[in-house]
Amino acid sequence: MKILLDNIGIIPMSGDKAYIENAYLIIEGQYIKEVGEGSAPAGDYDQVIDGRDQVVLPGFINTHTHAAMTLLRGYADDMPLMEWLENKIWPLEAKLTADDVYWGTMLAISEMIRSGTICFADMYFFMDAAARAVEKSGIRAVLSRGMVGVGPENEIAFGESREMVEKWHNACNGRITCRLGPHAPYTCPPDYLERVINLSDELGVGLHIHIAETRGEFEDIQRIYSNTPVVHLDKLGLFERPVLAAHCVHLTDEDIDILAAKQVGVAHNPESNMKLASGIAPVQQMLNAGIRVALGTDGASSNNNLDMLQELRSASYLQKVHLMNPTAITAYQALQMATTNGAIALGLGNETGQLQPGYKADMIIISFKQPNMLPAYDPIANIVYAAQASDVETVIVDGNILMQDRIIKAFDEEEVLAKARETAKRLV
Amino acid sequence: MKILLDNIGIIPMSGDKAYIENAYLIIEGQYIKEVGEGSAPAGDYDQVIDGRDQVVLPGFINTHTHAAMTLLRGYADDMPLMEWLENKIWPLEAKLTADDVYWGTMLAISEMIRSGTICFADMYFFMDAAARAVEKSGIRAVLSRGMVGVGPENEIAFGESREMVEKWHNACNGRITCRLGPHAPYTCPPDYLERVINLSDELGVGLHIHIAETRGEFEDIQRIYSNTPVVHLDKLGLFERPVLAAHCVHLTDEDIDILAAKQVGVAHNPESNMKLASGIAPVQQMLNAGIRVALGTDGASSNNNLDMLQELRSASYLQKVHLMNPTAITAYQALQMATTNGAIALGLGNETGQLQPGYKADMIIISFKQPNMLPAYDPIANIVYAAQASDVETVIVDGNILMQDRIIKAFDEEEVLAKARETAKRLV
Repeated sequence: MKILLDNIGIIPMSGDKAYIENAYLIIEGQYIKEVGEGSAPAGDYDQVIDGRDQVVLPGFINTHTHAAMTLLRGYADDMPLMEWLENKIWPLEAKLTADDVYWGTMLAISEMIRSGTICFADMYFFMDAAARAVEKSGIRAVLSRGMVGVGPENEIAFGESREMVEKWHNACNGRITCRLGPHAPYTCPPDYLERVINLSDELGVGLHIHIAETRGEFEDIQRIYSNTPVVHLDKLGLFERPVLAAHCVHLTDEDIDILAAKQVGVAHNPESNMKLASGIAPVQQMLNAGIRVALGTDGASSNNNLDMLQELRSASYLQKVHLMNPTAITAYQALQMATTNGAIALGLGNETGQLQPGYKADMIIISFKQPNMLPAYDPIANIVYAAQASDVETVIVDGNILMQDRIIKAFDEEEVLAKARETAKRLV
Repeated sequence: MKILLDNIGIIPMSGDKAYIENAYLIIEGQYIKEVGEGSAPAGDYDQVIDGRDQVVLPGFINTHTHAAMTLLRGYADDMPLMEWLENKIWPLEAKLTADDVYWGTMLAISEMIRSGTICFADMYFFMDAAARAVEKSGIRAVLSRGMVGVGPENEIAFGESREMVEKWHNACNGRITCRLGPHAPYTCPPDYLERVINLSDELGVGLHIHIAETRGEFEDIQRIYSNTPVVHLDKLGLFERPVLAAHCVHLTDEDIDILAAKQVGVAHNPESNMKLASGIAPVQQMLNAGIRVALGTDGASSNNNLDMLQELRSASYLQKVHLMNPTAITAYQALQMATTNGAIALGLGNETGQLQPGYKADMIIISFKQPNMLPAYDPIANIVYAAQASDVETVIVDGNILMQDRIIKAFDEEEVLAKARETAKRLV
């Protein structure tokens, strides 16, 4: 399959130009074959997309979510954290079946494709079902079975994680990779974490973990281990493995130095941190220290959507007001966080997150024909500060068109919506 | 014209029920005639809208913007405030003609209708052109000619304000009302403000003013007048008139007491305050004091969009994280700010902002058919925390359908987009 995007604006997120106004891009099979300025070379294309008044960019990488939790969207809001978890979220989660996780993940993927996400990092359970949803939908994903080191789940999670990695790591032409998902330092005791680290070494996969999300966690870990969460995990050897660390809201300067030195990928989730009142992560400080901070939405029960455009904007606006500095996190920096940094944080930095030859053909096309996208003095500012999900017209992953002109091509979306409605009725 | 909305969910923003699942609403002429549960009475309707999987609510009221500044969207971002104003915004604004303001306002109105706004409070110049755009488009508006008390503008603004009020106040069946728009305490000296107050008394109109937007303004007014901006304006007698005060970010407890006692309408602009790093307004504290805080987007050059759904969400999330309290500004409170409080702040509390018989037929219909709106356990939470502008399907103002199924009926939107593109090319 050879696809030409013609007469299009390009934000390549690589090379010296932030934006190329009149350009073309050629896709061959899974890969980007050519990116150029001016007219496209004549050739035999299976499909030509006319890109007038449109801009193509690497799609968004959602580096932290719990996809199937879309089924819990709006079920409980505006509550204190523990009351919310104990009385609402956990009892409902206990009812979920593998089938629910499949359809919940499909619902999440529909929403993610519709808002320009080409890859997501998931941590949940019934991950075989989640993987089947990724396989079916055509999106790219990094999957982790959440592992909690206390209670009966403890051993089950080990077996299921190993099974998942053996079955799905590098599956679907490399669209799926796997990581181990130790939940957090406060739910995984040191000996459990050491076993997880050893398993990740044995299986040759990275880790995905929540770190320093709340002030309470920071204080508890300090009290129990006499170290910050980051120092505690560092001493256990966690960061000798490739780590994707979600949240990192409560950090000391020393923590930031460790995360930078160990090249830990940080998934910043500004809207979840705001909505749950977790706090404001020191994003500018982390970026200044050289950490490639990426963005995530977290699950739909704490956000309540999976729209990365809103995270881009919130990441920038929240740092600006927090630091009382309107130059903090520029539009381009926010876009880097959502694309190239996301790829690096997931260990896919040589594969996706940029539009250049040899990279996987993962990209989105945004329309500049709507009133909210005009005038277009600076397409990057418009995308970060003014765009909405519905401005994303076309989504391509691994060379396949998943959505074109707002129509999902890759699967039957109506079936997904019907199943989501049905499941929600059964759950409550 | 008699319109029936049938089989629809209703969020009336009045009465005892936050949400009525299976209801109907009848519009006759400019007014809401009937709201009821269950089946609609048989009758002769000119139009019947089938509301299955849809929810109707009072549309959003954008209580502070500079509509024609959409023409400056994305022209300059991520800059320190004064550098941004002096080197970028003001020189471009100096080039604007009345015709530009007409098309810029039309562009803003297109975007506002598409994101569910039924009424906006505008402060700008060439307000006759802005009023003609409001007249043409069918939207509701409260218009103010910005008045700066220094420089040659000084006297011109007086004459133009008087003319505007005489020509447009209560025009278009009451869709347009006018206010005087003294810009801010730091741009209007006391004697100038006193003249404006007297004129507002003479003309029988309220005022629209920026107050305490930045820390710098707060400190300057303190230094010059030995009072906070609010106390300074109170002593001048400003609050004896109906006042719409934009921003109110930097307030003392005494300021809040004054704003409450004088029933000042406050237009909170969370995203502008974040993006320009102005600060975080004490919204929860103002609401607790009984102030009916409303919401606004501010102009598109400091936001960079006019999407009230994003303001709703940011208003809630920003207070939650600022106060480290996830129960601050609930979804319903945010919706109140954007609807009933907005109407009250604009002096239209008996006319719009609620769905009940006798109120103007101003409302929007939101679809729950998209993946980001499912499941729908709590329609209010979904609208505030998960909806996007494109979920707004239909917009009705003053009994007229301005947009139906995402198609603007009230004017030629393509012409507006073409003129916006043309104007932008000329400006830079």
